[in-house]
Amino acid sequence: MILAKVVGTLVSSQKEQSMDGLKFLILQQVDLSGQANGGFVVAADAVQAGVGEMVLYASGSSARQTVMTDKKPCDAVVMAIVDQWEVDGDTKYKKGLDD
Amino acid sequence: MILAKVVGTLVSSQKEQSMDGLKFLILQQVDLSGQANGGFVVAADAVQAGVGEMVLYASGSSARQTVMTDKKPCDAVVMAIVDQWEVDGDTKYKKGLDD
Amino acid sequence: MILAKVVGTLVSSQKEQSMDGLKFLILQQVDLSGQANGGFVVAADAVQAGVGEMVLYASGSSARQTVMTDKKPCDAVVMAIVDQWEVDGDTKYKKGLDD
Amino acid sequence: MILAKVVGTLVSSQKEQSMDGLKFLILQQVDLSGQANGGFVVAADAVQAGVGEMVLYASGSSARQTVMTDKKPCDAVVMAIVDQWEVDGDTKYKKGLDD
Amino acid sequence: MILAKVVGTLVSSQKEQSMDGLKFLILQQVDLSGQANGGFVVAADAVQAGVGEMVLYASGSSARQTVMTDKKPCDAVVMAIVDQWEVDGDTKYKKGLDD
Repeated sequence: MILAKVVGTLVSSQKEQSMDGLKFLILQQVDLSGQANGGFVVAADAVQAGVGEMVLYASGSSARQTVMTDKKPCDAVVMAIVDQWEVDGDTKYKKGLDD
Repeated sequence: MILAKVVGTLVSSQKEQSMDGLKFLILQQVDLSGQANGGFVVAADAVQAGVGEMVLYASGSSARQTVMTDKKPCDAVVMAIVDQWEVDGDTKYKKGLDD
Repeated sequence: MILAKVVGTLVSSQKEQSMDGLKFLILQQVDLSGQANGGFVVAADAVQAGVGEMVLYASGSSARQTVMTDKKPCDAVVMAIVDQWEVDGDTKYKKGLDD
Repeated sequence: MILAKVVGTLVSSQKEQSMDGLKFLILQQVDLSGQANGGFVVAADAVQAGVGEMVLYASGSSARQTVMTDKKPCDAVVMAIVDQWEVDGDTKYKKGLDD
Repeated sequence: MILAKVVGTLVSSQKEQSMDGLKFLILQQVDLSGQANGGFVVAADAVQAGVGEMVLYASGSSARQTVMTDKKPCDAVVMAIVDQWEVDGDTKYKKGLDD
């Protein structure tokens, strides 16, 4: 999974019918300090994530292994909202502190 | 999914038989300002997108999860035409305004 | 799918048995002008493409969705020979003219 | 599979329900000398790997082929802890010596 | 498939149980001249390849379409040992000559 921050939303009215009801989130990849780094991707939301939250997203066929994305033409899904992470014993991000 | 602009079309008469009837679109990836950025890809069209439109495309096995691409050797599909997107609360693209 | 030119062939006698009879083509990725750009890949041939032809190839599990590659350890397949493509209304490539 | 070092852990309480009980590891890719090189990824742990260990991870649908990740929205899994590797006959890494 | 040279081997005793008996090879990607170029990957061996040999490997779900890797958390497999390849009519590599 890739670590990213939800930075926006996207709206589409004309789409493959099975995508109806899915929310599209714009994700900015971040580094282990939580800073923007790398590209962005548009992902379906399986966990009611909001703008500003740090999340994990899964890509490829794994993006269809959620209740909301099963059998849909979706190749990226936010499947976890991140509470915190540690690197080499140091807390690098803790939700609520670094937002 | 990846954000892209439809910039062209491609024709092939000699192809895997199951691909008959699919339309190939040439997509240019764009950044969050809607400007060309990154590479291009050729995708099948599942939503009757036209040249000049901003779209989302899905890759890999997810590209086969549409009525038009099911069980076909297709690894990229346009599955949504984009109406608008917002980043950090600002509307960055709105169909009809920025075209 | 990715646009590429067939630039060569590859022979292997010792391989997974299911690959017997498949032809391996060496593909050079090209840009929208048809010029070599980016990397190369080795793909199975599903459409009897020849050296010098512009083709599309599909990657990943989609590369197994042809009659010739079904259930085989093949992650790239040439599934279309390109006749022509247009970008922003201009014909950028037409088979027979640009070869 | 990709060679990486476990450098941290990540916690998420709000996630796709099927992910409950999986441990998330932060992996730093390494080169053949075992030095950090390239990006990082967050992977599920299928082999009880610990911080500091050299591991292999598998991506994509293959990341779901473990007892712990089957049918889950998981696109990267640690499926082996590395004991040692050799390049051109030289031992480049041996667990316990280079940690 | 990607062209690579087998440059080493890797040993893991603690791994997903289904991986028992598979041999891990370290592969260095090569260019069309057979010279090291690009990254490396660790792949399972389906064709009894040895260090120094030029091979093709398949990635993703296609890496599980061999007798040895079926249903295993393996995302890269050596599925062919290369005898020779030609580019634009010139033999660029022939086994036994260039090793």
